[in-house]
Amino acid sequence: MAQKPAKPKPETQKQISRIAAGAADNDDTVITALNLADAELTPAMKAYFDKCTEKLGFVPNVLKAYAFDMSKLEAFVAMYNDLMLAPSGLTKLEREMIAVAVSSHNRCYYCLTAHGAAVRALADDPVLGELMVMNYRAARLDRRQRAMLDFAIKLTAEPWGIEEIDRKALRDVGFSDRDLWDIAAVAGFFNMSNRIASATDMRPNSAYHRQKRE
Amino acid sequence: MAQKPAKPKPETQKQISRIAAGAADNDDTVITALNLADAELTPAMKAYFDKCTEKLGFVPNVLKAYAFDMSKLEAFVAMYNDLMLAPSGLTKLEREMIAVAVSSHNRCYYCLTAHGAAVRALADDPVLGELMVMNYRAARLDRRQRAMLDFAIKLTAEPWGIEEIDRKALRDVGFSDRDLWDIAAVAGFFNMSNRIASATDMRPNSAYHRQKRE
Amino acid sequence: MAQKPAKPKPETQKQISRIAAGAADNDDTVITALNLADAELTPAMKAYFDKCTEKLGFVPNVLKAYAFDMSKLEAFVAMYNDLMLAPSGLTKLEREMIAVAVSSHNRCYYCLTAHGAAVRALADDPVLGELMVMNYRAARLDRRQRAMLDFAIKLTAEPWGIEEIDRKALRDVGFSDRDLWDIAAVAGFFNMSNRIASATDMRPNSAYHRQKRE
Amino acid sequence: MAQKPAKPKPETQKQISRIAAGAADNDDTVITALNLADAELTPAMKAYFDKCTEKLGFVPNVLKAYAFDMSKLEAFVAMYNDLMLAPSGLTKLEREMIAVAVSSHNRCYYCLTAHGAAVRALADDPVLGELMVMNYRAARLDRRQRAMLDFAIKLTAEPWGIEEIDRKALRDVGFSDRDLWDIAAVAGFFNMSNRIASATDMRPNSAYHRQKRE
Amino acid sequence: MAQKPAKPKPETQKQISRIAAGAADNDDTVITALNLADAELTPAMKAYFDKCTEKLGFVPNVLKAYAFDMSKLEAFVAMYNDLMLAPSGLTKLEREMIAVAVSSHNRCYYCLTAHGAAVRALADDPVLGELMVMNYRAARLDRRQRAMLDFAIKLTAEPWGIEEIDRKALRDVGFSDRDLWDIAAVAGFFNMSNRIASATDMRPNSAYHRQKRE
Amino acid sequence: MAQKPAKPKPETQKQISRIAAGAADNDDTVITALNLADAELTPAMKAYFDKCTEKLGFVPNVLKAYAFDMSKLEAFVAMYNDLMLAPSGLTKLEREMIAVAVSSHNRCYYCLTAHGAAVRALADDPVLGELMVMNYRAARLDRRQRAMLDFAIKLTAEPWGIEEIDRKALRDVGFSDRDLWDIAAVAGFFNMSNRIASATDMRPNSAYHRQKRE
Repeated sequence: MAQKPAKPKPETQKQISRIAAGAADNDDTVITALNLADAELTPAMKAYFDKCTEKLGFVPNVLKAYAFDMSKLEAFVAMYNDLMLAPSGLTKLEREMIAVAVSSHNRCYYCLTAHGAAVRALADDPVLGELMVMNYRAARLDRRQRAMLDFAIKLTAEPWGIEEIDRKALRDVGFSDRDLWDIAAVAGFFNMSNRIASATDMRPNSAYHRQKRE
Repeated sequence: MAQKPAKPKPETQKQISRIAAGAADNDDTVITALNLADAELTPAMKAYFDKCTEKLGFVPNVLKAYAFDMSKLEAFVAMYNDLMLAPSGLTKLEREMIAVAVSSHNRCYYCLTAHGAAVRALADDPVLGELMVMNYRAARLDRRQRAMLDFAIKLTAEPWGIEEIDRKALRDVGFSDRDLWDIAAVAGFFNMSNRIASATDMRPNSAYHRQKRE
Repeated sequence: MAQKPAKPKPETQKQISRIAAGAADNDDTVITALNLADAELTPAMKAYFDKCTEKLGFVPNVLKAYAFDMSKLEAFVAMYNDLMLAPSGLTKLEREMIAVAVSSHNRCYYCLTAHGAAVRALADDPVLGELMVMNYRAARLDRRQRAMLDFAIKLTAEPWGIEEIDRKALRDVGFSDRDLWDIAAVAGFFNMSNRIASATDMRPNSAYHRQKRE
Repeated sequence: MAQKPAKPKPETQKQISRIAAGAADNDDTVITALNLADAELTPAMKAYFDKCTEKLGFVPNVLKAYAFDMSKLEAFVAMYNDLMLAPSGLTKLEREMIAVAVSSHNRCYYCLTAHGAAVRALADDPVLGELMVMNYRAARLDRRQRAMLDFAIKLTAEPWGIEEIDRKALRDVGFSDRDLWDIAAVAGFFNMSNRIASATDMRPNSAYHRQKRE
Repeated sequence: MAQKPAKPKPETQKQISRIAAGAADNDDTVITALNLADAELTPAMKAYFDKCTEKLGFVPNVLKAYAFDMSKLEAFVAMYNDLMLAPSGLTKLEREMIAVAVSSHNRCYYCLTAHGAAVRALADDPVLGELMVMNYRAARLDRRQRAMLDFAIKLTAEPWGIEEIDRKALRDVGFSDRDLWDIAAVAGFFNMSNRIASATDMRPNSAYHRQKRE
Repeated sequence: MAQKPAKPKPETQKQISRIAAGAADNDDTVITALNLADAELTPAMKAYFDKCTEKLGFVPNVLKAYAFDMSKLEAFVAMYNDLMLAPSGLTKLEREMIAVAVSSHNRCYYCLTAHGAAVRALADDPVLGELMVMNYRAARLDRRQRAMLDFAIKLTAEPWGIEEIDRKALRDVGFSDRDLWDIAAVAGFFNMSNRIASATDMRPNSAYHRQKRE
């Protein structure tokens, strides 16, 4: 039998979707299509949100979307930060390239906007971000990065068809077994996030659009 | 630039894939196709593994697969337990039904085996597990569960096409916005896990196959 | 102009679908969603049904589904028995493996249940049956059986794309031209049966589910 | 274990593929890409071939393709004649329309050629045959025939998605449950035949191409 | 802001669709499903229509469909004649083969009918036209023509996946870079025309059906 | 037989692809992967190129790509200008929205870049351009524009499935038959251009990327 989650207290109902009222596409007060009241931030999450505001100028909407439940928010943040920021044989840029190429396959507006900006910033190349958004096959990548993205996209499009020959293609361009895990884990994570964003009509902070365009 | 992850110490290399040596499909010593040495379990994870052994008779292979890195294992366990076991408007069985229907779309051997057994157990119905594995559309479900699975599968197959009308179909059969989140989050999570399992050729513990068949 | 088939006599109306009345998924009195009255069994078919009951403990529902018309039942039985039981370069197990892999592609509940049980029995391996149902690519097959299933699945998924190079792949692992015919004929037959079963919502005998699980 | 089929006697090796030798597309001596020696026709099949020659001017190549084994030929002929010629709520033309629409989806050269000619002949309308070959949706059909073909094509393209609502669409335009069976059975049969023809590169008798063009 | 196109004068309303009135599939008075009044032909277009009538016995319906606007008609005719008739490393037959193979992929009734007749005429081979309509992979083509059609069909089915290796496959069988352009341009053009024809339910002149059948 | 096109004179070989030499993604000297020498511009095309330079600051690369042959260039320019700039019931912005949504489906780097910039400029809205590139379904459009794009994308993805009901959906939101033609013609045109760009690896002028980002 289903156990009902605890009701959020009325005074915490700050985040309300307002799509029906005709919000514009760049209205930063709308986060998702779901009407879920914010929970009270734990001290750790309060500190994390403050750090985001300090470094980015805003709290990414995906974090606000999870903020109705601190367990879910903390689990998401822990997994995200480990995957995208912890030591790995993949550079942070490479992990963001996977994020965007996967999000392009899944046509996820939120992730393409937020992580497209990240590729532009980390690569210091406004064109590379566009290429990942539009069609990674058109980018002039070295063999290693191309193999990495080909694996991530096959894993996205037809996960049932991945076999030893696909893993071999990664090893052949120098990736270790640990790198294979990281490629799979980042591609997998964005296959999750793309779907949560699409299911809830999550909207990106409008600031992303103009970042790093020159 | 990529930061290299710390090398695991040689004496921890306990988990080794042996596919090349001709392991049989039910050989429980093979976990994945990746050669990643086990890290030392943290006390929390040690306790968790012990609890699994006590309750299930074994540690699920997905946990062993993540055990090369405690940060990744702990993040996975935190997210998994919150999604599948925490209070929700969805019963545990319903969450497992989503897990299996999504894994069937993605043809993920690991997840179909492990979570197919969970559906058989939670439903106390060996046939319902088979139906989720084979084609959930053939099961005689009530309108609520059918709408739940239809949303999860559309979100899996064409996430770009989910719109307000799809959310409305869930609300029309009584799901709350919080339930919508949970349906999306469980479907999203298995879209991640299916891909990590397929990318690494993760093998289920052989015990799952014979559980709850009568 | 259409010629009307002869009306079955009222007293033979024994097999009636009862889905609308809320039959459970394991209700063995429901065969299909079509309301077709049983015809009188010919002596040959009576003997065949009796033999099924003696050997299996029941008459497979697919035979009952065809029993509204003896010409159709006899043609189906003749073709089925020739394909699956007559001498061939393919073992009976191999023919059943094709049956299940094709039925998995087509997600046919009836055929996956009945022939999944057959693979478990003929292989004396409960796991192989599951692998054929879930994703044959995850099974550790020898090159010959893998080539056989790859051909059968390509023929199922995109028959327009089969060419000499596909036939060559079968010959390269030792199959004769006669074997090629048999692979094609078994794959073709289940592409027919899967569709008749799906079109009529054919339900498998519940006994299949628990057969050969250990 | 596989039982080897009896070897055909050498003197019966009359039907030999000659594709490698550069046969033209309208070379009527080539039947399939498989090198299978003809078996001796049984008296019933001899009579049937003679009747074909008398009525059509030739023996359809599909029959010659099966003629390496009398059990297979007889089973095929029995099923084919029952489906396409026996009394049914569907006219013979309607059954041929299903055959061609299904074969168009599967892009089967043999079946499109042979059964496209049948539609032209039975409809006494050279254009209707072309429409079934090219895109049945462009034909100006009444609601009944359109529903029949929509069902057959959905059953061909995504058999896993057929449900009660699809059967209802047929009943709503007047089809009986017996008619539903026949639509499913004809569509299923050509999903089998298309695949056997494609797997073996079966070539149609060249005479079909010019039949009933005015 | 949209600028309204000039209204055609009432007396020029000669071409009217009459589908609703139950027109037959071979009714040559119906051109498209759109009710667009003919504009007055420019002298150049008048001469071109007269030349069509003189050479073919009729004005192809695609030209009549464009005749509501002389700028559009003239642009279409200029591009069409350059692509299909101007000097090129591809023969006119090869260009028509691309036209039909692309139109077969897109299942375009108009283009398959009109250009299928062109292949039959230019090849002086009634069977080659049928093969292009039904499945070009079944035709016995030389390596050059097969590579040409494989490129055109991949470009049609998944343009995002065309890469240097695909261009190399054309160069390897002797095509020049100019030939590559022409293959791409013809395939591209029919991807446009197929869609305009399908969007407007364009009907081919019935005379095409019986041309060059012997 | 193929007529060979006139060889361009050697001194006109100005436009040379240099991909092999490791050109960067934003190298404006590379136009396509084809090595085709520029023809001499006709006076009309010279004036047109000069006008482009004056208004845009550069000649769009698609025009340079066609400049190896004046007949092809002039036919392309005539059709393009009529479609995108001539009077129509669709605004210029709406025509560009169709261009980008279609190019997004086809993942065409050239067209997404050039026409994405056009949407940003014509709408004076940097976000709308991104939405068309990423997933038009996420944009908050009125019913008219949404119906227009849904038709264009269905026509792109499955042209064989367009029927009267699809045309009716456009008429129901106020489009005239002439508007239907224009929607189909613009969608068709970009299905052509996307393919020519992908076939030749056409690269957009780098200036597009930073236009109208604020």
